[in-house]
Amino acid sequence: MFVRDTHYRTIWFDQALDSVQIIDQTKLPYQFDIASLSTVQEAAGAIASMQVRGAPLIGATAAYGLALAMREDSSDAMLHKACEMLIATRPTAVNLRWAIESLQSELLERFPEHRLEHAWQFASLLCDNDVKTCEAIGEHGASLLTDLLDSSKSVINVMTHCNAGWLATVDWGTALAPIYKAHDAGLDVHVWVSETRPRNQGLFLTAWELAAHGVPHTVIADNAAGHLMQTGQVDCCIVGTDRTLVNGDVCNKIGTYLKALSAKVNDVPFYVAAPSSSIDWHGAKLAEDIPIEQRGVEEVVNITGVASTGELSTVRLCGRESSKEETAYSNYAFDVTPAGLVSALITERGVVDANQTALRQMFPECFSSDGVVANE
Amino acid sequence: MFVRDTHYRTIWFDQALDSVQIIDQTKLPYQFDIASLSTVQEAAGAIASMQVRGAPLIGATAAYGLALAMREDSSDAMLHKACEMLIATRPTAVNLRWAIESLQSELLERFPEHRLEHAWQFASLLCDNDVKTCEAIGEHGASLLTDLLDSSKSVINVMTHCNAGWLATVDWGTALAPIYKAHDAGLDVHVWVSETRPRNQGLFLTAWELAAHGVPHTVIADNAAGHLMQTGQVDCCIVGTDRTLVNGDVCNKIGTYLKALSAKVNDVPFYVAAPSSSIDWHGAKLAEDIPIEQRGVEEVVNITGVASTGELSTVRLCGRESSKEETAYSNYAFDVTPAGLVSALITERGVVDANQTALRQMFPECFSSDGVVANE
Repeated sequence: MFVRDTHYRTIWFDQALDSVQIIDQTKLPYQFDIASLSTVQEAAGAIASMQVRGAPLIGATAAYGLALAMREDSSDAMLHKACEMLIATRPTAVNLRWAIESLQSELLERFPEHRLEHAWQFASLLCDNDVKTCEAIGEHGASLLTDLLDSSKSVINVMTHCNAGWLATVDWGTALAPIYKAHDAGLDVHVWVSETRPRNQGLFLTAWELAAHGVPHTVIADNAAGHLMQTGQVDCCIVGTDRTLVNGDVCNKIGTYLKALSAKVNDVPFYVAAPSSSIDWHGAKLAEDIPIEQRGVEEVVNITGVASTGELSTVRLCGRESSKEETAYSNYAFDVTPAGLVSALITERGVVDANQTALRQMFPECFSSDGVVANE
Repeated sequence: MFVRDTHYRTIWFDQALDSVQIIDQTKLPYQFDIASLSTVQEAAGAIASMQVRGAPLIGATAAYGLALAMREDSSDAMLHKACEMLIATRPTAVNLRWAIESLQSELLERFPEHRLEHAWQFASLLCDNDVKTCEAIGEHGASLLTDLLDSSKSVINVMTHCNAGWLATVDWGTALAPIYKAHDAGLDVHVWVSETRPRNQGLFLTAWELAAHGVPHTVIADNAAGHLMQTGQVDCCIVGTDRTLVNGDVCNKIGTYLKALSAKVNDVPFYVAAPSSSIDWHGAKLAEDIPIEQRGVEEVVNITGVASTGELSTVRLCGRESSKEETAYSNYAFDVTPAGLVSALITERGVVDANQTALRQMFPECFSSDGVVANE
């Protein structure tokens, strides 16, 4: 999408610099910085520190990370080491594991001297495909938004959570793609942006994206989501997903579950934009099997903003020094929204009910004939 | 309760200083400051700026505010002006209106020269009664916690929201009183403290209180409440209330509704500590009739913490200057939890179902014989 009139993707290979370039998302919304990744360690670090985040973009970064590893040493040993390092960065993200394992098996079939070129091609194709996927999700989701229009309303109010916009993908986004498509097509869309504590990806990234694209939006505290739905101020929710099970259970940013509960009891359609790469076709079958990542508690306690001097400053939201020991903090990064709370999944092939039967009809090749989910 | 080995209430009249003293809660948890109120304007300002907050304490401050007004001028005109000024500070708080209207009608019955002394007495008695009320809520609620103990668990995990502790009352608190009583009686209680955006009363005040009293607790982002309940890590919720309708609908800090929804579907008892003064006996009958206060959006965008220099610093959580215009913010302060989501109310007279029939049995004098809620 556009930033200061220049079109950007969130990740690309720069021939002249001979390195992978990313938008450093830890600097947003305060600074628009491009960071260079020259080694697999740097790629893993970018994922772990959330310079890149969002399931599709993490997958793309991991693929480029493997290419960088192969550039250094294309041996089996390096390949295995690099895969392990990359998978360990974010245990909940299924795209990450999918991208790494797909590329790993393709590379293992090749002689070491052919691996580097293949890895570059794979990563580049992954990015191009992600853009196509997100655009298709945008088209399918925009139809859902148009369907919500009726004579009684002139504006469609969409609530989202966290950032599943173009910053979370290579371009277009997942949850925000329908909003961009609908907005570009002339529909009046207004977006409720929940700030998404503790990392504030809604406030910091989604609001930044929407402002840059000119989509009207209002930032709220996460706590306000229920009240807005209860009082009829939300026409639908669209969120992203880090991992969706074939039974339709959705793992996404912590707090998604609370929004889904509120949507259900208030008859607000709750859509999950789920590229097929985020569906766990051959992994966990039950929500209990999903490892829920716990992140550092400093994410809860520290926050960065602009001080009165205009400088960026990180402040600690904690009282007396002594209370460090007296007060504990916890930071679960994801939760699971049961399929029963999900109105539909928006995939690149179309809108589909959040259950195995419907997914099987839309993605038959992901299931084997005997009903066991097949390897891709 | 105790602060640095000294027993404090949150508000008191200081003879020597000839003024009302309050703990300035906007400074917590970073500084423990006592502020002086010498005029009704200062009392109204303390309520509006949330130097004092919490339904019972707001009521007490308003009563002291009327006494300060009477000290200046005990005419009818001043009385009416002062009442209006005080009621306007927080439109959702029913205790505020109750305290002011009760004292106003008592003062109007008296000759102006007797009003000041009566106002002081009223305010002082209101405080003493609030302490008794909160202690009684603590005893009744502690029994509920003890009832949750069974052979399978040695620790009771209680989730709370916002701050309904002693800082929100004159002493003991409402939602936290059962926790203090149970803890003091030797029960192992652990408290999940949701930070309570946008003002962070959980992180700033509840954690501070619990740390000072030595009650184990863990601060979470509000978004994590659903996941913790879904995964069996919460034995019950206890929250406060700013206003509870006679039908059992509970108006409380924004985000309460989301916790109640999650508690309901996960079979977690959801208790509301509701002193009878917070029950709207003769006001709104329906949730739709409750005015939901919207506060300044700077509460969402600005946050104060300790900078690396050790100094307090307020940072702005917002990107480019230009995005001020492009991004809107919204800040609803309360939401309504329907009675059907409330397991029981904990009042000073005991634990009662959240419906009019049960409330009528426990507080018959608040209802007239024909079923219409009577004036007190």
